[in-house]
Amino acid sequence: MHKDFYPSRTGENAGKITNRKDPVVYGNAAEGPLDKNDLDYYNENGYLLYDDLFNEEELKVMQEGLQDILNKNEKKEADHIIREPGSNEIRSVFEIHKDDPFFKSLSKNKRIVQIAEQLLGSQVYIMQSRINFKPGFKGKEFYWHSDFETWHVEDGMPNMRAVSCSIVLTDNHEFNGPIMLIPGSHKWYVSCPGKTEEDNYKTSLKKQESGVPENKKMEKLVEEANGQIDRAVGPAGSVLFFDCNTMHGSAGNISPFPRSNVFFVFNSIENKLVEPFGTGQPRPEFLANRENIKPIKPETSTFRKSQYA
Amino acid sequence: MHKDFYPSRTGENAGKITNRKDPVVYGNAAEGPLDKNDLDYYNENGYLLYDDLFNEEELKVMQEGLQDILNKNEKKEADHIIREPGSNEIRSVFEIHKDDPFFKSLSKNKRIVQIAEQLLGSQVYIMQSRINFKPGFKGKEFYWHSDFETWHVEDGMPNMRAVSCSIVLTDNHEFNGPIMLIPGSHKWYVSCPGKTEEDNYKTSLKKQESGVPENKKMEKLVEEANGQIDRAVGPAGSVLFFDCNTMHGSAGNISPFPRSNVFFVFNSIENKLVEPFGTGQPRPEFLANRENIKPIKPETSTFRKSQYA
Repeated sequence: MHKDFYPSRTGENAGKITNRKDPVVYGNAAEGPLDKNDLDYYNENGYLLYDDLFNEEELKVMQEGLQDILNKNEKKEADHIIREPGSNEIRSVFEIHKDDPFFKSLSKNKRIVQIAEQLLGSQVYIMQSRINFKPGFKGKEFYWHSDFETWHVEDGMPNMRAVSCSIVLTDNHEFNGPIMLIPGSHKWYVSCPGKTEEDNYKTSLKKQESGVPENKKMEKLVEEANGQIDRAVGPAGSVLFFDCNTMHGSAGNISPFPRSNVFFVFNSIENKLVEPFGTGQPRPEFLANRENIKPIKPETSTFRKSQYA
Repeated sequence: MHKDFYPSRTGENAGKITNRKDPVVYGNAAEGPLDKNDLDYYNENGYLLYDDLFNEEELKVMQEGLQDILNKNEKKEADHIIREPGSNEIRSVFEIHKDDPFFKSLSKNKRIVQIAEQLLGSQVYIMQSRINFKPGFKGKEFYWHSDFETWHVEDGMPNMRAVSCSIVLTDNHEFNGPIMLIPGSHKWYVSCPGKTEEDNYKTSLKKQESGVPENKKMEKLVEEANGQIDRAVGPAGSVLFFDCNTMHGSAGNISPFPRSNVFFVFNSIENKLVEPFGTGQPRPEFLANRENIKPIKPETSTFRKSQYA
């Protein structure tokens, strides 16, 4: 049995905020690609936003890849295809780093992998990947959560040593439900009330019921951030890296503009999943890779338009 | 019978966007208090935002007045008190310009009334008043709508000659569900599909089902605005004036910060309500004043803290 440094949903821990017990940045500036300023910012805030990692042509290829996934899965019913509550539109498609040749290649792209390696101070692997679509007019909100809380309780991620990489493929405006992040929230661990139901993931991907932080805890986190809540707003092609424990969420989207992004979770090869800390049965492979884990060999990906011609 | 210049919810008109048939600004710059720049801006965009109409002490008195209304109505059940769907928190309290001495006086305050008079080129009266609360964490979205469409169809407002005045009593941030407005949308009239149910207002104040513009129409309005959607963001005390036909809405509020505002609808004394254009029975008086209508005599209100001591 692994020691549980971050108990949650155990009843008696409901309502506790404790300090993070792990480093935030595991690597150092000398290794690159990030410099000291970047690392300090990430360490302090729990996220970093870039708008120049990919050029316009590459963006276009990624958008075509996205459309390709949408088209392929439009009428498919499968566990790894999640639809909006109250409509039939696709919200997320998981496992794109395995199922799709283009996104498989993108997931190994050294421009993003080497940043993950530096932040986590080790080789990395993809713990989860997905494409998210937030349709215009009716995109639903996603309430505040720490990904780590879920990954720890339901998937058995032992320590905070993972980073999410979100490549936005549509412009993110203030008015179309961008990701909101609470600066500095990654330094705290908020244990959640309640217990986890069996097969919780089947509903939680649409609407969270457990793993939801209490209002008082959220007030405390925002107070510590001097009342600031940041939004990942930027042009298509922007890339957001955020710590696995950064508290984030998003409001609904009533604007006509859909939001879509590619989402890779890089986990340190030294932080592989063990038995879940809060449930008996681990979640399925498409949500949390645990089989045949090998570190990524970073690649200089080619972005060729002809791929989808 | 009055001629219906703006048919909506009649079935056959679903899907039409037509030009506004009324002026936007009825007065002129020479009269004041607004100068030509302000009037041009309002004419072009359909709204104006001020952050210096009231000072800090006055804001404090208004906030106390708001809290007073909340306290008084906390446990009261009445048609004019609207609660959040899915919780029991108060969303709106109507008729505050009649029921509450402080807000009665505020509704006649010359700083706001004279702006309404200038915009509408006549004396004005309060057609509707309310206080809105949007609680933190669970404030629900309010979908796109033109107030005029509802006021025309359900209340019998003949022409576009009314202006809403919203005094925000909490800071409006990008992240706590501020009012979003589509610049220039007031120049178009979007007739809505469907028919109006009897007593529609009982549900529409919580969640709109009719009077909802179609997606294609919304796309057109936003396209005409060059993809821009504006947010009424500003410190507590800011005052937003917007034309009765400006398309607006708001996303939900998952932040810890509630949003509240005082809302007065000034209608031209020359634009009094007639029979509803789309329903048999007019909505109740608390939603649309039609009894004993007299023009407001603007007052230099006193804001005394002792009022609530």
